[in-house]
Amino acid sequence: MIFSLTTLGTASALPTVDRFPSAHVLNVHERLFLIDCGEGCQMQLRRYGISFLKINEIFISHVHGDHVFGIYGLLSTMSLLGRSADLFIYAPSDFGPILKSLTEQFGSQFKYNIVHVPVSGKEPKLIFETKSSEVLSFPLNHRTGCYGYLFREKQPRRNIHKYLIEKHSLSLSEIARLKDGDDIERPDGEILRSDIMTYLPYRPRSFAYCSDTAPFPKLREFVSGVDLLYHEATFLQETEKVAALTLHSTARQAAQLAMEAGAGKLVIGHFSSRYKNSAMYENEAREVFPETYAAREGAVFEIPLSGHGS
Amino acid sequence: MIFSLTTLGTASALPTVDRFPSAHVLNVHERLFLIDCGEGCQMQLRRYGISFLKINEIFISHVHGDHVFGIYGLLSTMSLLGRSADLFIYAPSDFGPILKSLTEQFGSQFKYNIVHVPVSGKEPKLIFETKSSEVLSFPLNHRTGCYGYLFREKQPRRNIHKYLIEKHSLSLSEIARLKDGDDIERPDGEILRSDIMTYLPYRPRSFAYCSDTAPFPKLREFVSGVDLLYHEATFLQETEKVAALTLHSTARQAAQLAMEAGAGKLVIGHFSSRYKNSAMYENEAREVFPETYAAREGAVFEIPLSGHGS
Repeated sequence: MIFSLTTLGTASALPTVDRFPSAHVLNVHERLFLIDCGEGCQMQLRRYGISFLKINEIFISHVHGDHVFGIYGLLSTMSLLGRSADLFIYAPSDFGPILKSLTEQFGSQFKYNIVHVPVSGKEPKLIFETKSSEVLSFPLNHRTGCYGYLFREKQPRRNIHKYLIEKHSLSLSEIARLKDGDDIERPDGEILRSDIMTYLPYRPRSFAYCSDTAPFPKLREFVSGVDLLYHEATFLQETEKVAALTLHSTARQAAQLAMEAGAGKLVIGHFSSRYKNSAMYENEAREVFPETYAAREGAVFEIPLSGHGS
Repeated sequence: MIFSLTTLGTASALPTVDRFPSAHVLNVHERLFLIDCGEGCQMQLRRYGISFLKINEIFISHVHGDHVFGIYGLLSTMSLLGRSADLFIYAPSDFGPILKSLTEQFGSQFKYNIVHVPVSGKEPKLIFETKSSEVLSFPLNHRTGCYGYLFREKQPRRNIHKYLIEKHSLSLSEIARLKDGDDIERPDGEILRSDIMTYLPYRPRSFAYCSDTAPFPKLREFVSGVDLLYHEATFLQETEKVAALTLHSTARQAAQLAMEAGAGKLVIGHFSSRYKNSAMYENEAREVFPETYAAREGAVFEIPLSGHGS
């Protein structure tokens, strides 16, 4: 049951020789969520051996070119590869006209539906769910409507301790009820407690994506306790003023948020082309939050499954 | 006085790990002409150290995604780099709506003008010229309006043989007239012939770009005698039927054209993703036209200056 993030691009507005614009893939149980789609995204997917066909949901943080210019090529290639499954794109409302012109000008051969689900709101909002996972959107603070996304596994159904089945001669219906969290009172008055008879097979994992944003207090609530936090770090503290002016963050500010939110691990990216060496970002952030990692193209950050005991 | 072609992308519709979509730069005397602009073009320009600022003219063969999807990122980056000079884009008329949506949706900050010059016509047409070079468009045969481009140096002004200046005591005005190709009759009846007194400092060089096209007889006239011919070779002879169906060419057909047109050198590209090894294209073409070279990303094909003697 994999839960991992692959970085496809770490550049900000100006790509460099080594850095592609923003794009990431979150693999949740082999379902791939594409998050942002900068230019060259389709080439990066190929480079890192990621199947286009497993992507049915795309999440766009905001409509600045370095986060969306790859959508033209990706959607066209999906068509050339014979896609027929619906594709859902979660994006702010101003993505609508872009999708419209894309399909009008290049989509005449497309054999699949593209559904734009507008993202909005001032509070976290459930926008997508499967049986085992869900996605919430939350607002960020940037120069245009910009949203972060929280991906998390749902609480799994509890498992029964095998040795207790025989000990208590449990029936199938009793097992089912205990797994659902119900306590059972037997005819002889014995109480079988669900929290003792069962256990969570694993602890649900979570990932929050904070694309372009200036820091703001509420953000720490939105991403509170995530296992893995991606946060942009376009600038360093020495260029904090430029960050403030352009509504971006510094590496230190990203780390500050990770610490205050109690995140497990912080991945930073969206680096300004003025800094060639991403170790500078990593070093600055680690002074505040040691578990910080500067993303690089192709890097995979996996959150291993951890059980609550069996 | 450089005259060279740099290949930025050799893929056809589906990019691969090693191949970017179509994009090329022709350097004529340090003036850079960008020809087609597939996705990732701006990254490739950076990778090969080509200055964005030296590009003032872009030539688009046709409006299929693999030839234009890089225009979004390139034009945005030109803006971010502070461009103020006008940019001219020579492209078929259906490029108009694409440019319109691009500037409406992403161009609010652009500080430079973008001029779309529509390309059309059934015969070669002069569409651009400087003092020393000119560009002609000519129609190709593809599934949508598609144009090739012929870039050539103009006939340079003739140079005077230095030793004849003294011998004939030539005046400045006589020298100028001889350089302009006029013969001179002196008062004593002596005729000074321009073709003897002067020489061409160099032989004008030419390059023709034949993007997506099925073969057709007139094409050999359009590119007759070029020093360097780029021609698409999406398929091999074994997949000739697919080529015919999609209005593309095989490597052999490209070579046939090069031979019939009397080209100096043939560069092939736009390779189908089904053939990983471009040597197969090169081998097939060389059976017909030995001076064939399969392009690869970053390859530079230079036409050296060759004089007519001095």
